[in-house]
Amino acid sequence: MKITSGSAWQRIQQQGFDILQRGLDRHVRLAVTGLSRSGKTAFITSLVNQLLEGCDNQHLPFFDVVRQDRFLGCRRISQPHPHIPSFRYDQALQALSSQPAQWPEPTRGLSELRLAIRFRPEKGVTSWLTDTATLFLDIVDYPGEWLLDLPMLNQQYLVWSREQLQLLQSEPRASKAASWLQKAQQIKPDDPVNEDLLRDLAEEYTELLHYFRETLGLHLLQPGRFLLPGEMSGAPLLHFFPLPAATQLEDSISPVPGTQLEQLVKRFDAYRDHVVKGFYKEHFAQFDRQIVLADCLQPLNAGPASFRDLKRAIELILESFNYGRSSLLNRLFAPKIDRLLFAATKADHITPEQHSHLVALLGQLVHGAKQHVRFDGIPCDTMALASIRATTAGYCQHQGESIPAIQGNKADTGEAITLFPGEVPNVLPNDEYWQDNHFEFVSFAPQAKQPDQPLAHIRLDQALAFLLGDKLQ
Amino acid sequence: MKITSGSAWQRIQQQGFDILQRGLDRHVRLAVTGLSRSGKTAFITSLVNQLLEGCDNQHLPFFDVVRQDRFLGCRRISQPHPHIPSFRYDQALQALSSQPAQWPEPTRGLSELRLAIRFRPEKGVTSWLTDTATLFLDIVDYPGEWLLDLPMLNQQYLVWSREQLQLLQSEPRASKAASWLQKAQQIKPDDPVNEDLLRDLAEEYTELLHYFRETLGLHLLQPGRFLLPGEMSGAPLLHFFPLPAATQLEDSISPVPGTQLEQLVKRFDAYRDHVVKGFYKEHFAQFDRQIVLADCLQPLNAGPASFRDLKRAIELILESFNYGRSSLLNRLFAPKIDRLLFAATKADHITPEQHSHLVALLGQLVHGAKQHVRFDGIPCDTMALASIRATTAGYCQHQGESIPAIQGNKADTGEAITLFPGEVPNVLPNDEYWQDNHFEFVSFAPQAKQPDQPLAHIRLDQALAFLLGDKLQ
Repeated sequence: MKITSGSAWQRIQQQGFDILQRGLDRHVRLAVTGLSRSGKTAFITSLVNQLLEGCDNQHLPFFDVVRQDRFLGCRRISQPHPHIPSFRYDQALQALSSQPAQWPEPTRGLSELRLAIRFRPEKGVTSWLTDTATLFLDIVDYPGEWLLDLPMLNQQYLVWSREQLQLLQSEPRASKAASWLQKAQQIKPDDPVNEDLLRDLAEEYTELLHYFRETLGLHLLQPGRFLLPGEMSGAPLLHFFPLPAATQLEDSISPVPGTQLEQLVKRFDAYRDHVVKGFYKEHFAQFDRQIVLADCLQPLNAGPASFRDLKRAIELILESFNYGRSSLLNRLFAPKIDRLLFAATKADHITPEQHSHLVALLGQLVHGAKQHVRFDGIPCDTMALASIRATTAGYCQHQGESIPAIQGNKADTGEAITLFPGEVPNVLPNDEYWQDNHFEFVSFAPQAKQPDQPLAHIRLDQALAFLLGDKLQ
Repeated sequence: MKITSGSAWQRIQQQGFDILQRGLDRHVRLAVTGLSRSGKTAFITSLVNQLLEGCDNQHLPFFDVVRQDRFLGCRRISQPHPHIPSFRYDQALQALSSQPAQWPEPTRGLSELRLAIRFRPEKGVTSWLTDTATLFLDIVDYPGEWLLDLPMLNQQYLVWSREQLQLLQSEPRASKAASWLQKAQQIKPDDPVNEDLLRDLAEEYTELLHYFRETLGLHLLQPGRFLLPGEMSGAPLLHFFPLPAATQLEDSISPVPGTQLEQLVKRFDAYRDHVVKGFYKEHFAQFDRQIVLADCLQPLNAGPASFRDLKRAIELILESFNYGRSSLLNRLFAPKIDRLLFAATKADHITPEQHSHLVALLGQLVHGAKQHVRFDGIPCDTMALASIRATTAGYCQHQGESIPAIQGNKADTGEAITLFPGEVPNVLPNDEYWQDNHFEFVSFAPQAKQPDQPLAHIRLDQALAFLLGDKLQ
């Protein structure tokens, strides 16, 4: 069997070959998400770029199918769902190739693309059937906030309210949230419904969420769709919020019809059923593999509260996998994710000898979370990577000593600098540690992509090996 | 039976009383759309305002339920679909009440609201059952472009392409479309699919549609969702366009898999099935009454091409009603619209003695269209109205003669003027007429709303009587 021509590829796809390919384990739907500003777009761009341009031993030494010279080629083909926006790989590459190079525009909402990877199977059943095989790889990009909404599927409004209130009443949220909380305290559960008041408070609550994300760099933001409402902007199911009075109410209470409480409960339920369940059924339950990207450096810069928030966000994400496996919905729409990778991005922003610390730190964030949830059966790994390397590592002399350093251009000013950005703690920092240490990791601009070279990276091949290796055997 | 209290109203709604109300003919879903810039927001705002504030003989003399003193009251209640954006009556009213008064922001996409109207039925079966009755009135606002897409449900890609090409090759579109057409002519139906090229041409085609609407003031714009893609922005089903080569192809051709033609056909079909059929099933098929607003003055200002475009758009709209009644889909999702009103808006922008001309002109536009389609069984009326009156009418003296005039503030400068804006033709103008006549109807700013007065209007009561009168008997 030869490598098929362009139109033959198309034909295979169109004739429902997908299903057959899935049966032969030759189809993977890989979901990419991140805790905001983690570099989803850079990751997908680099992943696609490596597969299209960089499949040689030099660039992907840890990717078996490449190392063993079984990789035959890769191309982008028509995506499976015409109503989902396409991931704009071309635009991202253009930004990285411009002078000076720029980080690609972040994506908003959901997007997808499909690659077809031709390879020679290793000796085994498959290789007996065919000389060459094709892996159809769908990459789906979605906002991390949607993932963090999934635990709402198992919650009632009052329970959710109390959980959010606890967040709102602790720093770093508390000082900004105080005046909103005061207003919301005036909502009496048994008052007749006042839609204008509920809408106004929901809009102010949404502004708070934006502030928490954009100014405080927090990740735990529910309901996530409030931040990206799209066509639901202004719809009543976005007009609810955590109710301060919830702390005085029994969970078993039945709200009186026509009251504020009843309206809030109805809207929470509508959000859960329409928005959260919709995402779960249409997308999440269809994913085969998931990578969650996290920037651990920015929360270290921002301090203990931001770092604890990242920890809690990772716990919630692991809960949502747990959710899928234990709940009622599961019987109808079992999630298929059988491999989960947490990756700390921007490893090029620290010196190489700190990478092991970064991995250890992320490992502890994930490990801590795993103890809170029943979570087994899914291979789950952690690693530190740089999707697109923005710095070069080396040594510089300081008072006769050789110290590790990185060199790059600062993202804000473009200024070329060489520095030792600091140490990364290799355990979860405790209060004492925070008192004695401050972090100031610098953001770097990308280096311009060379036309004849794939994008430089750190350990993207190892991420590929974990996420796809078994499908390319 | 007394007028129920707030919470009792809510209870009635929540207990699925809707269905019972529908059975007793006490529920109406009124759809409001318009050919762009026709004043949908002003119409809905004024309609709601009249029902909430203006239900007396002085303001609504032709609305039977008011004239006969059977109107008991009206209030806004929770809308039926929590995932659909709410119509922002409060914001619109605020704009109209500001100093200087402003027209409300136009709506984008779909929105809805629900009113409950309490009234005493006339003597008859219903009045025997109850002293008072409630009409639940849902008002749904949607872009006219979506209505103009409906005929695509019955079309194949090549037929649609030829129809659009004809438009693109005639003025006023031709001179702007020429360079795009030249590029699109290079698409060979049998070439292997090139997604980047298709996307780029589709994006340029979308820019053309925007130009036609915003600069030329045209209404016939397909596919309508290209102009308002929302969450589908960047999705492949928006990446098609009319194919110039369609003029050389037989309708019966089966496209070769993997070719440009096949991809375009697939996307057209995906658009039709996902977008157009989606709107039809979820919304259009649920409407009970439809009002189509049209601004006839702006096309008269713009000249014969714009006016012919309005005529063709009205034909297409009537076709879409016909479509619903004759096609296969009909058997599954019969549209229920049983009353259709075409209203020429901005009647306050001409002097009162010209109103009969405006109605006659609109009548001919609709009458001409009716001859092209089998269209019967739906009472269809035409009228001229002003949702929110922006001028006062009177007479001024000119060379000893008393001539009719209107007085108001110009929309662009705010300058107060008194003028005779010109005559409206009472038949469809022919070429000769266009050579001898030019129109320059002025746009007026709204007059500030007085707190204790409902919005002033022209014939809104007659529109209400036609659209709702039979439901309030």
